[in-house]
Parts: sequence; structure tokens; C-alpha cells
Amino acid sequence: MAEHLSQSELDYPFKLLEYFNGFRISKAIFSACELGVFDLLLQSQKPMSAVEVAQKLGTSEDGIERLLDVLVAIEIVDVEVVQGTAFYSSTDVANLYLAKTSPKSLHDLIIYNSQTIYPLWNNLVDAVREGKNQNEKTFGLPSEEIFSAIYRSEEEMLKFMGLMNSTWVIDGHDIVTAFDLSSFKTVIDLGGCSGALARELAKEYPSSTVTVLDLPAVVQTAQRHFAQQDDTICFQEGDFFEGEIPPADLYILARIIHDWKEDKNLKLLKKIHTACHPGGGVLIAEALLFENRRGPTMVQMFSLNMLVQTEGKEHPPSHYTRMLTDAGFRDVQVCQTGKSYDAILALK
Amino acid sequence: MAEHLSQSELDYPFKLLEYFNGFRISKAIFSACELGVFDLLLQSQKPMSAVEVAQKLGTSEDGIERLLDVLVAIEIVDVEVVQGTAFYSSTDVANLYLAKTSPKSLHDLIIYNSQTIYPLWNNLVDAVREGKNQNEKTFGLPSEEIFSAIYRSEEEMLKFMGLMNSTWVIDGHDIVTAFDLSSFKTVIDLGGCSGALARELAKEYPSSTVTVLDLPAVVQTAQRHFAQQDDTICFQEGDFFEGEIPPADLYILARIIHDWKEDKNLKLLKKIHTACHPGGGVLIAEALLFENRRGPTMVQMFSLNMLVQTEGKEHPPSHYTRMLTDAGFRDVQVCQTGKSYDAILALK
Repeated sequence: MAEHLSQSELDYPFKLLEYFNGFRISKAIFSACELGVFDLLLQSQKPMSAVEVAQKLGTSEDGIERLLDVLVAIEIVDVEVVQGTAFYSSTDVANLYLAKTSPKSLHDLIIYNSQTIYPLWNNLVDAVREGKNQNEKTFGLPSEEIFSAIYRSEEEMLKFMGLMNSTWVIDGHDIVTAFDLSSFKTVIDLGGCSGALARELAKEYPSSTVTVLDLPAVVQTAQRHFAQQDDTICFQEGDFFEGEIPPADLYILARIIHDWKEDKNLKLLKKIHTACHPGGGVLIAEALLFENRRGPTMVQMFSLNMLVQTEGKEHPPSHYTRMLTDAGFRDVQVCQTGKSYDAILALK
Repeated sequence: MAEHLSQSELDYPFKLLEYFNGFRISKAIFSACELGVFDLLLQSQKPMSAVEVAQKLGTSEDGIERLLDVLVAIEIVDVEVVQGTAFYSSTDVANLYLAKTSPKSLHDLIIYNSQTIYPLWNNLVDAVREGKNQNEKTFGLPSEEIFSAIYRSEEEMLKFMGLMNSTWVIDGHDIVTAFDLSSFKTVIDLGGCSGALARELAKEYPSSTVTVLDLPAVVQTAQRHFAQQDDTICFQEGDFFEGEIPPADLYILARIIHDWKEDKNLKLLKKIHTACHPGGGVLIAEALLFENRRGPTMVQMFSLNMLVQTEGKEHPPSHYTRMLTDAGFRDVQVCQTGKSYDAILALK
């Protein structure tokens, strides 16, 4: 993902300075999203001046002008200067991914990154020193119970579910088509959250019955905020760590394993193996590291993110193969999608 | 600076996700710097395992391993895996710019970005809404007096001076050689801070007398912390806004104009014009925007940074030309260095 740091960097550190500027680029896009810039530009029938944008959004003219100019520089917003006045309009990329109303909107992913993850990363030095998450230092929450921190209020639960939902809206299709899953007639998405991945699966395999199993409060929030009119998926309240896992042909664990320590994960996989119908399987969706530790950059970042926020980490394929084999599964297949998340299928 | 956002981004938002990840890349490098990773790797005679690095730096093994792997992914640190154990070593780029002891070290620039600017940018939404800096919300400091906020303690003053010093250590030579300044025999760097730019000038033009004029506390800190054995520059305590400006052939204003509102800047330039010897001039060092608002990305970011932290902003060349002409200067010449900072020379 990163461009190669070339020898010319020794003459002048352009790329390093770009890295140092990374937090400003992130926050500029995040803040524009929070202020509703992309929604306004999408709805507007014509390019708007900074004065007009400021009036509509209730911001300062000077501030919004500078923010718009940053978005122009990174080619997310377009500008035309007419007789000395700049008029701004949206780009296809912003309309598709940054406007809240788009079906592929990353709005909720952005809000979570901006309001929760950005402040957590301000304590990265302490996370590395202590080797543990920084929920307590950042938000005054105990670090032992990661989901009581993540779900510390209804608002926070909704934000986190929005993050997960955004992810599977853009990555879900690749995960459910990484393997032919049509032979699995009953599917349970363990910790399926808003149901976005389950919906992708139900769409691709209409003859399968797809159930999201998650904590009662999550299921209730999913049904209140993320239900869709033509939903064919079911929700079931439960706790797959503490409670029972119902029998099924296929279990999905999407971004679950990376939250927890190895012993907890192995116990969970063994429990799934016991519940699983013969000939059934488990589909893991995670971002995979290279075996040689050299990337991908994004996944190394996710792994550091797991340190700051959870008990877990990201792993290379061999880790999942070993863990699944230890839990009793066989025929482990790994599919690297080339997108953010990869898929691993194992059979009972 | 930014890569062109291509149409293929509509298929999958790789570049957008990279932008969202920017804050993590910044903070990973910043945190490694704060923890002393680059100094340790530079001093080490051989590649080190994560366990050895953790022991030397007093961090967790798991945390430092993940941080090192991030630095490997962005090619700032190198890795070799020997019989399952990863051994990390530094790169030339890290040794030159990230180790504290290097003469081109950006260590102090990084510390300031990490500890002061990163938290300020967490309030970017409010800065844009209110059109003013966020010193009060971020640090509980009044926003009206920007330098009483920036210099709120001796420690903070030292950090800020370190930031300025780092900048001119890598950019100073381009600024002082942008024009032939050899005819100016007495030079005063107004707000010259640690003296780094003045030193570059004195080195390039050994027959000129170069004086740094800055606030008493700044001059004292400069002499205590940034003095060099073979220093040929002088320091003078003063306040160029409130007090007198001594006569000279050339005045330097390096990253001063961008801190303040236009009326204050114009008043300052007129005052400099009055003090200036006939045939003398003023050299402004700032990052210049394109006239068409489309960049450079870094400068648009700096301008937004000025909103978050100061009263000022960045400008295109035409703004400086007009302002200098209004203050009575003539023959304005602009030199774009292609690096982070540009130079503008005007004569009396």
C-alpha cells in the first residue's frame, strides 16, 4: 500500500512529511463528513460558494473555505473560480462514499474513526508501553471488558454498529463470494451486529437461511436502526461465549477472532466445531497479514489498532490454519480478496 | 502531492481508506519517536528482536512488536526473520531524519505535532464552525493571545522552538539561497526563534552580520538550548510588534505573516519599511498556495492548521505581492523552492 521509500528521500523527506501530515488529511475528511459538507454538495443542484456552504451548514465562512480548499487539493471536491469567487462541487467518489444517503456510504465508519479511534490513538505511546488498550485513559472506562467499553452507551453502540455496517456494505460481497457457500443451508453469523454481512450472504445464496446471533442489546438496536424492508435475514439474541451456540451448517466469524486472546478464540472455535452439523464449516473474515511481516500496511495498522482498543491482534494465514486445525476443523482454505478483508473457510 | 483520485476508486475506495488511515500512520511514527525506537536502532550495532527493543525501552514486547511491524510496512524500519524470530534494523531515512542525534533530525517537529497539534485537530469541527483557533477547548487557554497559548510554559516554549528549529534545519538552506542576499550587510531575523534560519544565512553569507530579534524569554531559551559552539549570529531581545525595529539592510520574516490577521501584518510591514535602510529589503519565508486553490495539499493543510492554532492563514503569491506593495516595497520577487517553504524578496 505504501509507496517505496526511495533513496531520493535522503535529499528531502517528502514522503516522511506526507506521513506526518496524515492525521490532518484524515481529520479534514472526517470533519467535512461530520459537518455535512458532502451531503450538502450532493443535494445542491449547482456548485456553491464558501459563503453559501457556510450559511447552509452554520459554520464560519473562513473556516469552511479552508476546509473546502483542502478537499479540493486531495481531489475529493472540485472547484471552479469564476470572477474571483470559488464555486465548489462534489466528485463522484465523494457522492458514492462520503455522502450519508449513498448506499455505499462510509459516513458511519468515518464518525467512529473520528470520534472514538482518533482520540484513542493519542495514547498510542502508553498502549505500546503497557501492552494494553487505552479505553480507560481515553474515556475513563475499565480496559478489561472491551465490549462494555465499546458499548458504553446506546449512542456508542449505535456508532460502533455503524462502523461495522459500513465495512460490510463495501467489503461484504467479496467475503461471501470468496468461496461457493451454496451447499450450506443454515448459516449463523456469530456477532453479526447490524446484519450487513448476513444480508450480503442472503442476497448471494437466496436458498440459505441466514441468522444473526448477537447480544440482546445489539439485536434490538440492529432491528431498530438497521432493519431493511425486504429483510430475509433473522436475528437471534444470545451470547456465543457464555451461552449456547445453536446447530447450523455454516458459522460466520467476521472480525471476531481479532478482538480476543488466543485461548478464548480456541475455546470458541472448539465450541463451534461441536455445534456444527457434519460436513458444515466456519467462515472467518479478517484482514490477513503477510507471513513475512512486511505488510499489508493497512493490516499492520489494524493490528496496532487492536492493541489500542481491544485484547486481540491481526494474524497471518498460518495462524488461522493452525488454530482451526487445533479446534478440529479440516480442509482450511484461505482466499485473499485484495480488498480490506480476506476470507478463510474450514470444514468439519 | 496527492495522487490523482482515479475513476477506479469508484470500484473500491483504496485511496480514501488510505486517507482515513493517515492519522494512524502519523501517530505510529510519532510514537516510535517518542519512545526512542529510532535512537536505539541507530545505536545498536546489530539488528534487534522485539524482545530486546522492549527490554531496552521499557515497553511491552507485544506492543513494540506491532509498532515495529507497522514501521516495516511503511519502509522506515527493516526486518529479517531468522528461524522464526524477527530482527529489526533502522533504514538510512530513519537514521537521518528520525533519530534524535542526527543533525537533520525532525524529532522536535514530530514531538510538537504529536503532543500539541494532533490533539488540537481533534477539535477541527469546532474550529471550522467558529472560525477560530481551539487552544481554549483543547488546552484550556484563551484563544485571543496566541503566543501566550503557544508559550504557556517553559516546556511548551521549548517544544515550539524545537519545531521551528527542525523546519529550518531541513528547509533553511533553500530559503537563504533562493536569492543572492550577499549585498545585504546587516540582517535581522524578526521572530527568529532558535536561530536556525539565521545560522543558515550566516553560513551562506559570512560577510553579513545576522541578528535574531525575538521576545526576551525566547532569546534566553534559544541561548540556553540552541546555542552552537561556533555561533556567529547575535541575539537581541525585543518585541517587533510593540517595540522598536532597529535599522538594517535586510529583515527576515519566516513563518510570521501566516500567524496573524491582515491589518496587523500590513502595519508590521510598514513599520519594517520605515526602519529599513534605503536599498534594503525584506525576505518572507512562507509556504505558498497555488493561485487556483488546487494545492499544494501540504500548504492547504498548513492553512487549515493556522485556523486551528493561530489567527492567520497561508496565501498565494499575489497576496504577498499586494501586501508588500501596499506597505511601500517594490520589485517583489517570488521563488518557489519545490520544498515545504518558499521565499519572497521585496526591496525598499
